[in-house]
Amino acid sequence: MREGLILKLSCPDKPGLVARIAGYASEYHANLVEFNQFTDNERRSFYARLELDTSKLEISVDDFMAGFEVLGRAIEATWNFRRFPYKMRTAVLVTQTDHCLNEILWRARLGEMTIEITTINRNRQTCRSIADKAGIPFHFIEMKDDKEKGFREIERILVEEDVELAVLARFMQIMPTWMCDRFAGRMINIHHSFLPAFIGANPYRQAYERGVKLIGATCHYVTSELDAGPIIDQEVERVQHYHTVSDLVRLGRDCERSALAKGIRYHVQDRIIIEGSRAIVFPD
Amino acid sequence: MREGLILKLSCPDKPGLVARIAGYASEYHANLVEFNQFTDNERRSFYARLELDTSKLEISVDDFMAGFEVLGRAIEATWNFRRFPYKMRTAVLVTQTDHCLNEILWRARLGEMTIEITTINRNRQTCRSIADKAGIPFHFIEMKDDKEKGFREIERILVEEDVELAVLARFMQIMPTWMCDRFAGRMINIHHSFLPAFIGANPYRQAYERGVKLIGATCHYVTSELDAGPIIDQEVERVQHYHTVSDLVRLGRDCERSALAKGIRYHVQDRIIIEGSRAIVFPD
Amino acid sequence: MREGLILKLSCPDKPGLVARIAGYASEYHANLVEFNQFTDNERRSFYARLELDTSKLEISVDDFMAGFEVLGRAIEATWNFRRFPYKMRTAVLVTQTDHCLNEILWRARLGEMTIEITTINRNRQTCRSIADKAGIPFHFIEMKDDKEKGFREIERILVEEDVELAVLARFMQIMPTWMCDRFAGRMINIHHSFLPAFIGANPYRQAYERGVKLIGATCHYVTSELDAGPIIDQEVERVQHYHTVSDLVRLGRDCERSALAKGIRYHVQDRIIIEGSRAIVFPD
Amino acid sequence: MREGLILKLSCPDKPGLVARIAGYASEYHANLVEFNQFTDNERRSFYARLELDTSKLEISVDDFMAGFEVLGRAIEATWNFRRFPYKMRTAVLVTQTDHCLNEILWRARLGEMTIEITTINRNRQTCRSIADKAGIPFHFIEMKDDKEKGFREIERILVEEDVELAVLARFMQIMPTWMCDRFAGRMINIHHSFLPAFIGANPYRQAYERGVKLIGATCHYVTSELDAGPIIDQEVERVQHYHTVSDLVRLGRDCERSALAKGIRYHVQDRIIIEGSRAIVFPD
Repeated sequence: MREGLILKLSCPDKPGLVARIAGYASEYHANLVEFNQFTDNERRSFYARLELDTSKLEISVDDFMAGFEVLGRAIEATWNFRRFPYKMRTAVLVTQTDHCLNEILWRARLGEMTIEITTINRNRQTCRSIADKAGIPFHFIEMKDDKEKGFREIERILVEEDVELAVLARFMQIMPTWMCDRFAGRMINIHHSFLPAFIGANPYRQAYERGVKLIGATCHYVTSELDAGPIIDQEVERVQHYHTVSDLVRLGRDCERSALAKGIRYHVQDRIIIEGSRAIVFPD
Repeated sequence: MREGLILKLSCPDKPGLVARIAGYASEYHANLVEFNQFTDNERRSFYARLELDTSKLEISVDDFMAGFEVLGRAIEATWNFRRFPYKMRTAVLVTQTDHCLNEILWRARLGEMTIEITTINRNRQTCRSIADKAGIPFHFIEMKDDKEKGFREIERILVEEDVELAVLARFMQIMPTWMCDRFAGRMINIHHSFLPAFIGANPYRQAYERGVKLIGATCHYVTSELDAGPIIDQEVERVQHYHTVSDLVRLGRDCERSALAKGIRYHVQDRIIIEGSRAIVFPD
Repeated sequence: MREGLILKLSCPDKPGLVARIAGYASEYHANLVEFNQFTDNERRSFYARLELDTSKLEISVDDFMAGFEVLGRAIEATWNFRRFPYKMRTAVLVTQTDHCLNEILWRARLGEMTIEITTINRNRQTCRSIADKAGIPFHFIEMKDDKEKGFREIERILVEEDVELAVLARFMQIMPTWMCDRFAGRMINIHHSFLPAFIGANPYRQAYERGVKLIGATCHYVTSELDAGPIIDQEVERVQHYHTVSDLVRLGRDCERSALAKGIRYHVQDRIIIEGSRAIVFPD
Repeated sequence: MREGLILKLSCPDKPGLVARIAGYASEYHANLVEFNQFTDNERRSFYARLELDTSKLEISVDDFMAGFEVLGRAIEATWNFRRFPYKMRTAVLVTQTDHCLNEILWRARLGEMTIEITTINRNRQTCRSIADKAGIPFHFIEMKDDKEKGFREIERILVEEDVELAVLARFMQIMPTWMCDRFAGRMINIHHSFLPAFIGANPYRQAYERGVKLIGATCHYVTSELDAGPIIDQEVERVQHYHTVSDLVRLGRDCERSALAKGIRYHVQDRIIIEGSRAIVFPD
């Protein structure tokens, strides 16, 4: 893989932003490999993602990043750089079902997601053998009696393992507010319905009762309001009257796997900028 | 078009139903052109739709229909027959936007829906020229000051015109309960969201605010509970962060046209059996 | 799982078939759990699939199957019965890529496909560790020097292992005619394009060169004409100008996994009737 | 609608292009409303589309366009400017079926496509009443006896009417090579299959015979090689074994309408850059 930098940026909209930002890169011979921008006219905001080839950079990468500060402040931007290639340290939190964990492992192994994985489970040993076969750490958390203690334990592991992204891969437990806040923008959930329909428990049963003709899954960032965080991706599957709840569960798994995989991929590639309750996603 | 009969039936499930029902048709030389059945194991109910070619019927069609009563009662069924070819007398209720009306007229003209149309509008003259060009009656209802009077007027027209199906083709007015009850199972609405998400007014604005990645439209039967009737069809379209509310309106129109067209087609072909809050749809 | 029988049948169309077939089942108290039929008016042929609950059967299942012969002959039918629950002995033939094998193993483990698997590979050891971890036999075939010998070896294994279904899960080798004939209707392939577009080698490269906006995968039965056998399922994914050939390969994998999984599931559940170059599929 | 400029450009890839191009716009206070770029690493080419708000332009729009020539030449670019708002003079060529013409008229009326339409028909009067009702010119071309003469007549009208875009909206006639060349990049066709499958006549019949599970439509630029021009958009619809050829025709119409509408919209908004046999499309 090439060496380079990703720059993600948001700022108030004003004339000349693209020229100035691209100009800075060009000035020091950082070549634009991919460039995405979006101007939100309702909010008067500007968002951009630049993928830069730094192989011919005139200065050091550190100097390039540090030097951007003058321009960044001038345009009142929030920004961050990331060097690649890199592997994002990722924790996958699971409970019982393993299809999402399997999907993540499979895609990571194929190079679709450049992540380094650790697994965290509560109460059950169900996914241990999958983690073991893949040679990935498996942390077992006892949460039956004292949930708060369990969450503190999870927090400890995330910090200790230096985790940058926490993925709730069908982790059937509502996160406490402090945890949502602690990992804001770094915790992704897969909800097994087409949000905002069927928030909370048993969405497939809810979908069945309502008689919908499409079921879905939603990958979103976790916020303290249940299932209300910024949406990254949604997938749907057509269903018919003869599908039982367990058929919906079966068909929905494919939506869940696909939506979660896209969500992680986009996050890991720094393709997402969160803006309030919405996610700006520059897909690849 | 061939001549024939459609038989739609529901009853408690028990062994031998298919053999007995198909046996009755066979006995009098009504040939099965299409046969659909569904057994709901949760409710222990049986549903079927038979399309019969009656060209070689041994007895008269009237005798055939009348004679079914013995079997129908024996199996405790609810059923109805419909002779075809036929045109269903259909009223299209509109307000301002005309894309759904246009779609219905176009498909009816192509023979995709065998309906005979009358148009009803409230307050505005916007769709009059479309109706006029198509040579279709246009009834204008004044509803500004006295809504109840307007609904009574609509009821009068539906009855007078002998309307079998009322289609709310973006008729932006909540139906009173008495009207929903009066036309239960005969009034179809197109809601411009993926129900049960975004019930009520301005669903595209709601969808934009929530930042969904798919928008949709839902065709459903009207019941007294707002946007909660049995769903016939749902269509979705992928959207991205750069789509404004007016983009969603534009993209959503295609979902609305498509979902409504399917809903009407299935209803007119007697392909739908309503069971509580769900619709059993045998698609063609 | 319940005990029961699946009856799959095709015959020339004539009046009264549904009544007679369902009548036979009903006569001996085999209850219809699911019933699908299709009349092809162009060919004047009739096709049906019956799923029967035999728990209350008056006679033995063997007698029931044997006794059908009188009716079957009278209506000039081709038919077969299958008792369930059963596991279909399935060989998965692979070369290098493992995503299809992984998908099959995963779905089989979840019970989505009731199969018992053996793995066959040629030339490479790439999938051995997957088979080993899953505790599934792995047969290695050396085909570099003498392909015909390799195919004879594969045939021997399929026969020895009593394999009922052979799945070419990205088995990059053209089957000899004798082998296609030998396993006609029992050998399924996944082709990595939307057939009949891009037959043969490197379909993703072909798709890229042609500049298509949708790529796909096709699951079909293997016949002696390359990539021309009856199609069971097709899946597509939207692509854009910026997707390289390797992006198409990545995105296409999801189509391949999904189409192949559906194809196997339908075959294993006896939901497919092959009619010339077309496959009649009664989906679940 | 705002006033502004669209700049479409392609050139050999080299460092600093975005900065230089955006820099030029910024220099004279042309504000970037939308910016899309694509670097084709295989061809080492760069493509961009800029939508510029010129309301605060320091110089005249003419001077701005003229002044770009220095930079354009320096980077060896091919480019063109277009001022908006504008209406593209568009000819719709039809034969018998009218659903595509209807769709175009409907979308144009809603403002989804900013075009001014003229209609051309050969041999039949079928679409005359639609054109008349819409108040659009209708040119009737007699092509039965002398096709070449007919094509010359069409050319004459296109030139006379100052047509910028010719749309073959199910115009069932193969264009002569000289005509394809004459209107290269300005003539769009809707083919009623998922190209490159089922090139030429009767694609729905071909699709039926092949037993595909998805049918489609392809909107593409016309080139002298039949159905082989750059693809703009493709749409698909799922079909099943029970769908007859006429069902495929019916279901396919929706794909055709949708794909053609997108194709025209993208062309009219200058969102397409043709590169050999491929079309770079920056969707909105």
